[in-house]
Amino acid sequence: MIIDIHGHYTTAPKALEAWRKRQIAALGDPAAMPKASELRIGDDELRESIEANQLRLMRERGIDLTVFSPRASFMAHHIGDFSVSSTWAAICNELCYRVSRLFPDSFIPAAMLPQSPGVDPATCISELVRCVEEYGNVAINLNPDPSGGHWNSPPLTDPHWYPIYEKMVEYDVPAMIHVSTSCNPSFHTTGAHYLNADTTAFMQCLTADLFRDFPTLRFVIPHGGGAVPYHWGRFRGLAQELGRPLLRDHLLGNIFFDTCVYHQPGIDLLLRVIPAGNILFASEMIGAVRGIDPETGRYYDDTRRYVDAAHIGEATRYAIYEGNARRVYPRLDATLKAKGH
Amino acid sequence: MIIDIHGHYTTAPKALEAWRKRQIAALGDPAAMPKASELRIGDDELRESIEANQLRLMRERGIDLTVFSPRASFMAHHIGDFSVSSTWAAICNELCYRVSRLFPDSFIPAAMLPQSPGVDPATCISELVRCVEEYGNVAINLNPDPSGGHWNSPPLTDPHWYPIYEKMVEYDVPAMIHVSTSCNPSFHTTGAHYLNADTTAFMQCLTADLFRDFPTLRFVIPHGGGAVPYHWGRFRGLAQELGRPLLRDHLLGNIFFDTCVYHQPGIDLLLRVIPAGNILFASEMIGAVRGIDPETGRYYDDTRRYVDAAHIGEATRYAIYEGNARRVYPRLDATLKAKGH
Repeated sequence: MIIDIHGHYTTAPKALEAWRKRQIAALGDPAAMPKASELRIGDDELRESIEANQLRLMRERGIDLTVFSPRASFMAHHIGDFSVSSTWAAICNELCYRVSRLFPDSFIPAAMLPQSPGVDPATCISELVRCVEEYGNVAINLNPDPSGGHWNSPPLTDPHWYPIYEKMVEYDVPAMIHVSTSCNPSFHTTGAHYLNADTTAFMQCLTADLFRDFPTLRFVIPHGGGAVPYHWGRFRGLAQELGRPLLRDHLLGNIFFDTCVYHQPGIDLLLRVIPAGNILFASEMIGAVRGIDPETGRYYDDTRRYVDAAHIGEATRYAIYEGNARRVYPRLDATLKAKGH
Repeated sequence: MIIDIHGHYTTAPKALEAWRKRQIAALGDPAAMPKASELRIGDDELRESIEANQLRLMRERGIDLTVFSPRASFMAHHIGDFSVSSTWAAICNELCYRVSRLFPDSFIPAAMLPQSPGVDPATCISELVRCVEEYGNVAINLNPDPSGGHWNSPPLTDPHWYPIYEKMVEYDVPAMIHVSTSCNPSFHTTGAHYLNADTTAFMQCLTADLFRDFPTLRFVIPHGGGAVPYHWGRFRGLAQELGRPLLRDHLLGNIFFDTCVYHQPGIDLLLRVIPAGNILFASEMIGAVRGIDPETGRYYDDTRRYVDAAHIGEATRYAIYEGNARRVYPRLDATLKAKGH
């Protein structure tokens, strides 16, 4: 089977965005703040938003299952305070859970967290618990920069983040390291901030010993690892310069990259440089790059075509499409096994 | 001949660093501020610092000429005010000029600017003029984030920067877009901040029309363009999504990438994806990655080996080693021609 470990609910019914706009408009005016219960989206609307979009494309491309989380750019943790993020995360996570119930063979949920700048990440635990225990989430998305491009949180290797890691280890769920919208005019959200965050997170891990403290903690760095595989020699050399172990020993037991790289040469580089056991198939469809590449006549984000065209053996292809996802997301594997897959 | 367009004076005599430390220690105490004239470095010291280091490696690697600028991580524009940056830039630029006079066949200078956070870039013009007119500089290094990792300047496409561009166009000198030390603990300087800045700068240009205002303005994006070539499909798709022209028409008349990518697969990707006319040979030697790669037994930053090993024709190799540099750096070309090269 083919598992796409990186999909967001980018096509949610318009009522969701309308509710969020009301929430944002009411910042600082508690009386005007909409209640979560005021958002009403029926199952038919959910079905339609998925069938016409993600599910249609999954069928066209032969993708069996998507790990499905709330729209990354809409997490916008920089907006409002913890209470605002908390209500918003609960709503978004519930919608992804409902999608996973409506299409249990095609979607399995991953959670966004109610992060908020300057707020102790421990405040995210109750939502994390709810999403894993009640909603069957198999992973979380962790935003290393809840400020939205001002980068004023401690590095991911700082004990600041440990409460989340402790819970991740307890539940054996990985985190995709994924920022949200940039509110810093220097950084285009999907063209700079996302890729920069991927590179930044990897380098934070390189310079520290986080995985000595949490040997089973697992991070998935999306968008093909940002700049990391392209500069793999630089990172190997920097690790050497800094007296760190070989990257393979230091990081590759805990860090994984997805295949959200939207052209053949990029995927070929990724597969050439990074061990196959650390690469997980993904497309982030429907996401930032929705068009058709005039050079190929195919969707840019149809990453299956690139992986299929790559010069790799069947065992490697199986690992990337399915095996690694089952290993890195044990709750996904358990769910599949319970269904006889 | 082989021209390396990206070298910094990372091996300057210790007296330079000692002077800078005194300058930093005197911030806020004008009476303690050292004078530029208190820094005394003799020609023999300069010669030794170059002959034992950059020049030795250039000879070993068969590099004929290096475009040589002050140490990027030491620019540290975030320290002090304009006056502090101004004195520091003048000192550093003078040293690179002196190196270029001592070794006129091997080094040609490029200038750092006395940028300072929140200060009008027009204040950099007089140093730029001095470096071009008196010191024969053929390029400048422009820091898109003088804050050192807080990214609170307007994007490079904002009229904020136009005074510098006007002078660049007048002199026909390109700018390498190069940040300095990160003082933001999120960003490792050479493992994250440098690469992020490269990606960020490219995306800033993609979303705007800077080169319509300055058709002859030229930016060199170092470190192989950050994440850009690896994600070339993403950038092509984002340009399409945003209704921009094809990248080739929109940006590749004005933006160039260097070859500071420290392993063969990265260089191969760069050469496969980016038109040869937009790639300029460089190593940033002696820089961030000084060690020997245990996988090859060669220096990581010996980028000539990767370019030599790449499957490209002789015309392409000539363009990357020499032809493009002469075209993008016309004052370099003129200097070489004046010497009969």
